Amino acid sequence: MSNLIEKCARLRDASHLLAATPTNSKNAALHLVANSLKKNSSYILAENEKDIEVAIKKGTKESLIDRLRLNEDRIQGMIDSINTIIKLNDPIWKSNDVWTLENGLTISKMTVPLGVIGIIYESRPNVTLDAFALALKSGNCILLRGSSSAIHSNKALVKVIKEGLMESEISQDVVQLVDDLDRSIVKEMLTLNEYIDVIIPRGGADLIRFVIDNATVPTIETGVGNCHIYVDESANLENAIKIITNAKVQRPGVCNACETTLIHESIASKFLPMLYDALSDKVELRGCPKTIELINIKGAVDSDWAEEYLDYTLAIKVVSDINQAIDHIQKYGTKHSEAIITENFTNANYFLRRVDAAAVYVNASTRFTDGGAFGFGGEMGISTQKIHARGPMGLNELVTVKYTIIGNGQIRE
Amino acid sequence: MSNLIEKCARLRDASHLLAATPTNSKNAALHLVANSLKKNSSYILAENEKDIEVAIKKGTKESLIDRLRLNEDRIQGMIDSINTIIKLNDPIWKSNDVWTLENGLTISKMTVPLGVIGIIYESRPNVTLDAFALALKSGNCILLRGSSSAIHSNKALVKVIKEGLMESEISQDVVQLVDDLDRSIVKEMLTLNEYIDVIIPRGGADLIRFVIDNATVPTIETGVGNCHIYVDESANLENAIKIITNAKVQRPGVCNACETTLIHESIASKFLPMLYDALSDKVELRGCPKTIELINIKGAVDSDWAEEYLDYTLAIKVVSDINQAIDHIQKYGTKHSEAIITENFTNANYFLRRVDAAAVYVNASTRFTDGGAFGFGGEMGISTQKIHARGPMGLNELVTVKYTIIGNGQIRE
Repeated sequence: MSNLIEKCARLRDASHLLAATPTNSKNAALHLVANSLKKNSSYILAENEKDIEVAIKKGTKESLIDRLRLNEDRIQGMIDSINTIIKLNDPIWKSNDVWTLENGLTISKMTVPLGVIGIIYESRPNVTLDAFALALKSGNCILLRGSSSAIHSNKALVKVIKEGLMESEISQDVVQLVDDLDRSIVKEMLTLNEYIDVIIPRGGADLIRFVIDNATVPTIETGVGNCHIYVDESANLENAIKIITNAKVQRPGVCNACETTLIHESIASKFLPMLYDALSDKVELRGCPKTIELINIKGAVDSDWAEEYLDYTLAIKVVSDINQAIDHIQKYGTKHSEAIITENFTNANYFLRRVDAAAVYVNASTRFTDGGAFGFGGEMGISTQKIHARGPMGLNELVTVKYTIIGNGQIRE
Repeated sequence: MSNLIEKCARLRDASHLLAATPTNSKNAALHLVANSLKKNSSYILAENEKDIEVAIKKGTKESLIDRLRLNEDRIQGMIDSINTIIKLNDPIWKSNDVWTLENGLTISKMTVPLGVIGIIYESRPNVTLDAFALALKSGNCILLRGSSSAIHSNKALVKVIKEGLMESEISQDVVQLVDDLDRSIVKEMLTLNEYIDVIIPRGGADLIRFVIDNATVPTIETGVGNCHIYVDESANLENAIKIITNAKVQRPGVCNACETTLIHESIASKFLPMLYDALSDKVELRGCPKTIELINIKGAVDSDWAEEYLDYTLAIKVVSDINQAIDHIQKYGTKHSEAIITENFTNANYFLRRVDAAAVYVNASTRFTDGGAFGFGGEMGISTQKIHARGPMGLNELVTVKYTIIGNGQIRE
């Protein structure tokens, strides 16, 4: 039995018990893990330092090193996150759907854990803790495959988690780290249908493509966000400036940042100079032919409409009406987060209904598409596919259902 | 552009409009399709006859020819099924989950169609109609890939559906049949992530395996049912006999039929002779060593516990207690439908909570795991995986969600 299969077999076995474990036992275990983090913070920081040293030697960019770095504050952030998850309602063994057939059978559609979740993720070590805590609270076991750049940190974190679990009623087997750094191990993981119920890739486009192409285990795609803000004819223009600015510059490197803004032609001559004044000192603006007639910016090329810049760059296009805006979004969008700025009731509703995306906004920044902002207390990722979950995946997305059927001797005629 | 891609592009385009089409337009279109079926029944029967002739020439088994055969009654069955679906509630643009954040943003988790559904299925031509009608009612476009043995029937049915749609407000493009019988076309279909949102394979284990192994499009696995009935110490034994008999012989060739029964050892000497009397004239019984000490039947071998007989065969095992029964189900079951026969309240609840399957029964036949029996008005298949849907997939399982977020200028701090 390979090392990976052995870990998976332990997860599978542990998942049967964890599925029926009551909330207070799960919360008590999470408390013990939080204490273990606090107690072992200097060990974690020392191990994290090893990853930082390797990264520096490799000449890694400072922004990436910063993502990798832990400190007392960030460990406290992990503890806070666990405490938030402890306070959330347990998503397991609930129902909004109970009915009785004419023959007297009562059917209840109950929530149950998925079982074993695999997560393949890059960089930030805090994902290790978030993923573990969300999985445990929702009754799921978790197989963690972090990036090689964070291997010392992740090993230390999982060791500290297990130390916390040791004092609890819950088996240490509920969490396993894949510490073999060979990429072939990921390929193996992607085909272990017998042990893993779902795999969530969380990282760059290459990682996600690799997972989709090689997995036979069901996967939930996360990721790419080419998000638009459409400024309608009737928009409150000050609001529009405020919202576009926030969605572009508050944190440009994330998937819910705005990449293209679409402007109704009847307001373009008034609005574009306002937008230029608000953004041009910090953002590179690239415009369609109509835009560059009105403000002095670089022309956009075709590939601009499809690009997720993740940077201080914004594409601008003038459209003739709301339908042209929706068509553009349909063609180039990634179905992540889309917004309309409008005072027109009919247009707002039309946009909400017609735009196909995980999150569709009226008069607000696209930056809110996030488990924390939605009130989910964290997220396992943001799904951009349509099956199982769409948008931020919190506790309620980490469940499946079981139909319980209660009878007194019913048979099928 | 290949013929398949062209069909998929039409489906994709049609899906945008269909997603926002009101219920009365969808119901009117379904009525017109039902009328078209009635009007064209002799054409459909003549085309079906061509499939029957080919099947007879090939020496196909009579039971399979019967599955393939259409007649006036079966066409009326399709019409009845459409009329049932017309009466069901539209699953689209509904919510049980609307909340408002502290900053005033109101988030609604709304149901929306999946978009384009691909279904790959075997034999029975009525699946063509059911799949189309369920998809249309839930606002989805559908790509149909039936078996080559039903190609004339399926072509005729899709032609007749399109004739019905022609008179409606809904585009004929919402349904497309893959009529190229080469298997390579299925492989192509399985990787068209740009056009198809989900693929549902419905058929034998080989088909399902082929789809899982080759798909990059998200899939929902359906299928194999190795279902158990556990007769607990406290069971009402007459009920147990009635239920096991129903679950085994009422229709043995289906996935929710019972394949193994597990008997608590304290009642084995009383119950097994009763079971023998009830079943042995029509069912081949195969028993564990303890069973064959008590009744004169064939011994079971290891592979019997894992086999989905789909036939008049039943495996019998004596277990020492409920935990041994659950362990056996965990080891050999396919997470489809499992039942306990008991009068003990604690054991009933323990079994419901601990057994990991799509449907778990107390004191009823496993044969009820079915979209029709559950009151779903039909089914697109029975999911045996955990993500997206589990158990019978009716209209409510053919949706995804969209978060709508209503603000008045909110930005992320």
